[in-house]
Amino acid sequence: MQDRLHNFNAGPAALPLPVLEEIKDSFLNFKGSGMSITEVSHRSPWFDDVINDAIQRTKRLLNLNDQYHVLFLQGGASMQFCMAPLNFLSGGQSADYINTGTWSTKAIKEAQIQNKPIKVVASSEDKNFCYIPKGIPFNKDAVYVHLTSNNTIKGTQFESLPDTGSVPMVIDMSSDIMSRSLDMSKVGMIYAGAQKNIGPAGVCMVIIRQDLLDLSPDNIPTMLNYNTFAKKNSMFNTPPCFSIYTIQLVLKWLEETIGGLEKMDERNRKKAKTLYDFIDNSDFYKATADMGSRSLMNVTFRLPNEILEKSFVTKAIESGLGGLKGHRSVGGCRASIYNATGMDAITDLISFMTQFEKTSG
Amino acid sequence: MQDRLHNFNAGPAALPLPVLEEIKDSFLNFKGSGMSITEVSHRSPWFDDVINDAIQRTKRLLNLNDQYHVLFLQGGASMQFCMAPLNFLSGGQSADYINTGTWSTKAIKEAQIQNKPIKVVASSEDKNFCYIPKGIPFNKDAVYVHLTSNNTIKGTQFESLPDTGSVPMVIDMSSDIMSRSLDMSKVGMIYAGAQKNIGPAGVCMVIIRQDLLDLSPDNIPTMLNYNTFAKKNSMFNTPPCFSIYTIQLVLKWLEETIGGLEKMDERNRKKAKTLYDFIDNSDFYKATADMGSRSLMNVTFRLPNEILEKSFVTKAIESGLGGLKGHRSVGGCRASIYNATGMDAITDLISFMTQFEKTSG
Repeated sequence: MQDRLHNFNAGPAALPLPVLEEIKDSFLNFKGSGMSITEVSHRSPWFDDVINDAIQRTKRLLNLNDQYHVLFLQGGASMQFCMAPLNFLSGGQSADYINTGTWSTKAIKEAQIQNKPIKVVASSEDKNFCYIPKGIPFNKDAVYVHLTSNNTIKGTQFESLPDTGSVPMVIDMSSDIMSRSLDMSKVGMIYAGAQKNIGPAGVCMVIIRQDLLDLSPDNIPTMLNYNTFAKKNSMFNTPPCFSIYTIQLVLKWLEETIGGLEKMDERNRKKAKTLYDFIDNSDFYKATADMGSRSLMNVTFRLPNEILEKSFVTKAIESGLGGLKGHRSVGGCRASIYNATGMDAITDLISFMTQFEKTSG
Repeated sequence: MQDRLHNFNAGPAALPLPVLEEIKDSFLNFKGSGMSITEVSHRSPWFDDVINDAIQRTKRLLNLNDQYHVLFLQGGASMQFCMAPLNFLSGGQSADYINTGTWSTKAIKEAQIQNKPIKVVASSEDKNFCYIPKGIPFNKDAVYVHLTSNNTIKGTQFESLPDTGSVPMVIDMSSDIMSRSLDMSKVGMIYAGAQKNIGPAGVCMVIIRQDLLDLSPDNIPTMLNYNTFAKKNSMFNTPPCFSIYTIQLVLKWLEETIGGLEKMDERNRKKAKTLYDFIDNSDFYKATADMGSRSLMNVTFRLPNEILEKSFVTKAIESGLGGLKGHRSVGGCRASIYNATGMDAITDLISFMTQFEKTSG
């Protein structure tokens, strides 16, 4: 598809081309149903196969034991900022929060708006969130530790999950879910808006352990209770069918074409290393995240000035490289290089960056 | 497309074929962006055009004045059952609810779970919800009157909106939005899961008047506050882009191909009358909703016994007529004939019904 762009958007983001092609090809008649996937009933064997396959693939890819439920909710990660404290802190207990940027800050705000007595046990706000805090003093009596594993805006990422002792982690993994394998032993819940690594906008994957599910009180609204979704296989009401279907295809691609999360991790590390190495070897481009805290998903960098940055983004688009503008809250440039971004996109980006520096530097 | 089914599902439901074809044709490269609509950033001119066009078409189709905001939320109508009382009844006031079936009952439950002092001012539960209550004693001090305009499961529909005096109506219009023109003068809010008349699952259209927006308190979770969506043109966080895009195309089809809601209403009345007339003239099929309360969207009927009903549904599928099974909670048969269902589907259904009666009656 030579008319396709290299898509470096932070989300919604690039999807694997074979996935898009399969959706397109079957769009008017899904699996011989005589209906589009957008028209098929969620109470049909066709959709049952879709959602159950997506769940099974998630369980295999992440090596989940039978204590974990894989759910599909709506409202994005932002709805989870509200739901996690609502479900897990009904008895007046506290939770620990790590603040590593915009999304963590919002998660903290949504717990506080409900008057939940949470504690911010670490923050990198002192240096504009350019690093991931280490040696965090967790509270042993916390119900959970909340963290954002990858920060799309600041371009930082936990290299590995912190040691929270016996306290389960609740992790916003919107921008790095399924990008690497995970040690789930201390993970109580993962949530992830799909629109970066696993699908289109409109669905949030929630992976939740039974002991956390058991914390939800009965007297909260039905659609805000995780048990509603766990008990009905995410079909208490009509789920976002098309988005779940796309996730299913992306997970199939991850398993069958890529070969699983270790292979995906290898690819992602190679892509990120290539791009960071190029930036580090340049005097013109400058990475913004601290070494050791750098994201493998969102490579944030600056040029010598904002005029050059603006010109860089514009000329990149003309060269078939889209979405390189930094988040509006921080400026600069950002290349989001999620799972679906191939090494060819990195190579083409570096060629462009080399050329741009030559003509503008 | 001779391999397409006549789709009588209650939702997700049939979509206009030209809409599906347009999605398919542009799926790998949306409007020359070099990206799929599922990959385009929601902060891009491409998506701005989509969402703004969907809003403008909604305003034109429903003749909305500038007091109304058109929003796109997630979580379906079920999330609205929770949000409406949360936003509008924070000061201890009451609202009136009309109970006309499963969905009204759920809306009432979600207000009660929040300890909101609502009043059920009318119910048709005494006759298994086969009729729409009339002459309802509304309370003048209610903040709003909640009703479900069309009941997919029981096959009933308000022929016209009740007179609630100066109290604004909050209407779950999931299954008949955009099926007819509306007198908005007493409507404070409409909400509608898209997956029946206007799009695929995964988005809920909310049309809300400014005076109701002004009732929302500040101390509720951000994602549950209507103002969050009104202030950010439904883009506080990533919206369900693909579902909104599909809505846009359906509304374009409604305006430009059908010719607006009066024309749509004419078509829908003709379709429903043809089917009800056939059923009423038969001794074999029996409509379940009372005359005067019958839905133009969901035609519910019974056969002489459940064995015949099961056989009817199975043989219908073999004849290219899908989704005729009644809701699992009530049994029987149901033909959902939303906007996208053409007269050809009705004619083919009646031919099949005639034939089935001949061979089984």
